[in-house]
Amino acid sequence: MICITRKEHFNAAHKLWREDWSEEKNIEVFGKCANANWHGHNFDLYVTVKGTPNPETGFVIDLKFLSKLIKERVVEKLDHKNLNMDVDFMRGKMASTENLAIEIWKILEPEINIFGNCKLYKLKLYETERNYVEYYGETT
Amino acid sequence: MICITRKEHFNAAHKLWREDWSEEKNIEVFGKCANANWHGHNFDLYVTVKGTPNPETGFVIDLKFLSKLIKERVVEKLDHKNLNMDVDFMRGKMASTENLAIEIWKILEPEINIFGNCKLYKLKLYETERNYVEYYGETT
Amino acid sequence: MICITRKEHFNAAHKLWREDWSEEKNIEVFGKCANANWHGHNFDLYVTVKGTPNPETGFVIDLKFLSKLIKERVVEKLDHKNLNMDVDFMRGKMASTENLAIEIWKILEPEINIFGNCKLYKLKLYETERNYVEYYGETT
Amino acid sequence: MICITRKEHFNAAHKLWREDWSEEKNIEVFGKCANANWHGHNFDLYVTVKGTPNPETGFVIDLKFLSKLIKERVVEKLDHKNLNMDVDFMRGKMASTENLAIEIWKILEPEINIFGNCKLYKLKLYETERNYVEYYGETT
Amino acid sequence: MICITRKEHFNAAHKLWREDWSEEKNIEVFGKCANANWHGHNFDLYVTVKGTPNPETGFVIDLKFLSKLIKERVVEKLDHKNLNMDVDFMRGKMASTENLAIEIWKILEPEINIFGNCKLYKLKLYETERNYVEYYGETT
Amino acid sequence: MICITRKEHFNAAHKLWREDWSEEKNIEVFGKCANANWHGHNFDLYVTVKGTPNPETGFVIDLKFLSKLIKERVVEKLDHKNLNMDVDFMRGKMASTENLAIEIWKILEPEINIFGNCKLYKLKLYETERNYVEYYGETT
Repeated sequence: MICITRKEHFNAAHKLWREDWSEEKNIEVFGKCANANWHGHNFDLYVTVKGTPNPETGFVIDLKFLSKLIKERVVEKLDHKNLNMDVDFMRGKMASTENLAIEIWKILEPEINIFGNCKLYKLKLYETERNYVEYYGETT
Repeated sequence: MICITRKEHFNAAHKLWREDWSEEKNIEVFGKCANANWHGHNFDLYVTVKGTPNPETGFVIDLKFLSKLIKERVVEKLDHKNLNMDVDFMRGKMASTENLAIEIWKILEPEINIFGNCKLYKLKLYETERNYVEYYGETT
Repeated sequence: MICITRKEHFNAAHKLWREDWSEEKNIEVFGKCANANWHGHNFDLYVTVKGTPNPETGFVIDLKFLSKLIKERVVEKLDHKNLNMDVDFMRGKMASTENLAIEIWKILEPEINIFGNCKLYKLKLYETERNYVEYYGETT
Repeated sequence: MICITRKEHFNAAHKLWREDWSEEKNIEVFGKCANANWHGHNFDLYVTVKGTPNPETGFVIDLKFLSKLIKERVVEKLDHKNLNMDVDFMRGKMASTENLAIEIWKILEPEINIFGNCKLYKLKLYETERNYVEYYGETT
Repeated sequence: MICITRKEHFNAAHKLWREDWSEEKNIEVFGKCANANWHGHNFDLYVTVKGTPNPETGFVIDLKFLSKLIKERVVEKLDHKNLNMDVDFMRGKMASTENLAIEIWKILEPEINIFGNCKLYKLKLYETERNYVEYYGETT
Repeated sequence: MICITRKEHFNAAHKLWREDWSEEKNIEVFGKCANANWHGHNFDLYVTVKGTPNPETGFVIDLKFLSKLIKERVVEKLDHKNLNMDVDFMRGKMASTENLAIEIWKILEPEINIFGNCKLYKLKLYETERNYVEYYGETT
């Protein structure tokens, strides 16, 4: 068993804010991240696939395919967007890095697990160089 | 003559947009950066001071002072903010990295050049790991 | 289950040296790290917490809290210190990166595991860009 | 249980190419990586050893030993070489990053697992900053 | 005056070798870089343009244009290629990082200096993380 | 004219302290850097040489020679040492990054400027990822 990882990136705006809370409570809980007019980040997304190498190619998964998949299905929807306002799969959800990773998993997993020799193993999502989330799917 | 540099950072939202242009023209010129609901970045700011070391301390400038100055006068106004809406010194200006660097210079230069042995030499501002601006002041 | 990580850093001096060994044996075993007058490093510490996101905030743990905790309980005691001489929790222990990670775990674990939805999962401690240690606690 | 990691690097040429396939099929499957006259990379190799610290030294493994082992047994054979033509242990194998990691494991494992307190746990091999492989051995 | 920089990258094989020298002399002078079957690198190229911001856009140069220019005129010819065999503008030249930077300058300068407000100022070309070249054109 | 740079590194302990000042004044001026028992850093040193490429080799300077020179004359004296106590060329000087860069220049310049086609142009010395010094010699 071996894992292979592809890194992609996107730049997006967001804020952490609950409409059902007062401004005071939002600021108390979310601090600077509750800034009414948003702030933003350069996000780095690492997608890790686990499997066995194909004997003919030596590949667990074709990285050209994996890169194209991430760009078309994820980056296209997030890059230069507002996570709270512009992204269909984040509607009605707190725009935390945790939740964003979970929703990206739901998009990528069915596209990767169709191959017999590999499956999606981990997503690592950097919000800043100092803060990141790792998600292994529901059952781990 | 020797230069010393301090790095600070801030996370902010912005968009590139001219109110006097149509949406079509904004998108034609600024592309994804014109997204109506903003996007954002992790900005890294490098402040370089040039001078001669103080014989007693061996310092061109005290980095504790320089770090505090950048944080109080620049980062405090930009971090977790919207460059188009929340920042007094960017009012009425295109929120390009170039213009942001020029405005930061105007804030920092008078605070640094009061010392006899050194002056502000360069600002380096990263918008992403792949795009950055360097500004040396008006006369270089 | 999802993990979230916060990076903090500190700069410290140390040496690898056993008082019950001769200078020759110390140098034979520890090489340059046994330099009598110490040497030092910029240490990077990554603290990873595993759990389930709080439904209201979308957070596994509040990173503002986690950052403050690491700074107050760990960085404050290590930054700009001598690991052999200045640090109470390293007294009588070899100042190896392995041992330092184990002692930091003992400090942070009880402060993090009081929350119902998460617990300390991993510490990653870089001594240099080329050498690092990962500790998962006693039972893994 | 604790892990310690040492990073080493090498620069090598390779191509992805099957002699039993036509040029068209090679290019269709491997894309730019099938360039007939090779291309190359700066590879970074992270070797992770898992174990318990030696009570006398505080070490899971002596990093001076580990670094020397990786350099003599692996880097010496790969650095400034052609993975398809110059490397004995890659003969007859696709020069994919996956296969390279698997072959490096076979070389290092018996040299590390002779110690009673530790064993080889993971290899992480970067082909580029955006593509990397992690291998945990056959039984994980 | 202000500078703006765009980073692009390519992966290539090369060797340092003079046909008019013996193998012994090639190895004596170029060491491991003279390996007959080539080796390779992940090259990072930083292109810096100096000028005054356009008052309407706030741009010294449009980074979308600059990125596309570098990719089409430089990266397309170098990425996944052999610098000694596959690259028309390196024919008959030593494939040193210095010479490569000089030839890239000749390609990019006329495409950038056609704008009234800016000109090519610097190329920075990393061969490895530890070795890089900076070229400012002939007249500096 | 073209510049080429080689990066080397060393790990060292130091403190900022004047024997002719009281402990109170040392702490007031130097803050945490005055810790009596030292602290330390991973220093990165970039040595930049400016010149014209040798027509036969394409080299401004042989990087194998430059690397060996830096290691033998500079790194050997600083790595795993105490800058205040162990380093002959820092005796009687404040162990600031500025002063360290100036003293390294004095060692390297005469060894590099003997070649007809190049001379030492810049030293860049990182004390941390956020603090660095650049020195261009006395006459710039």
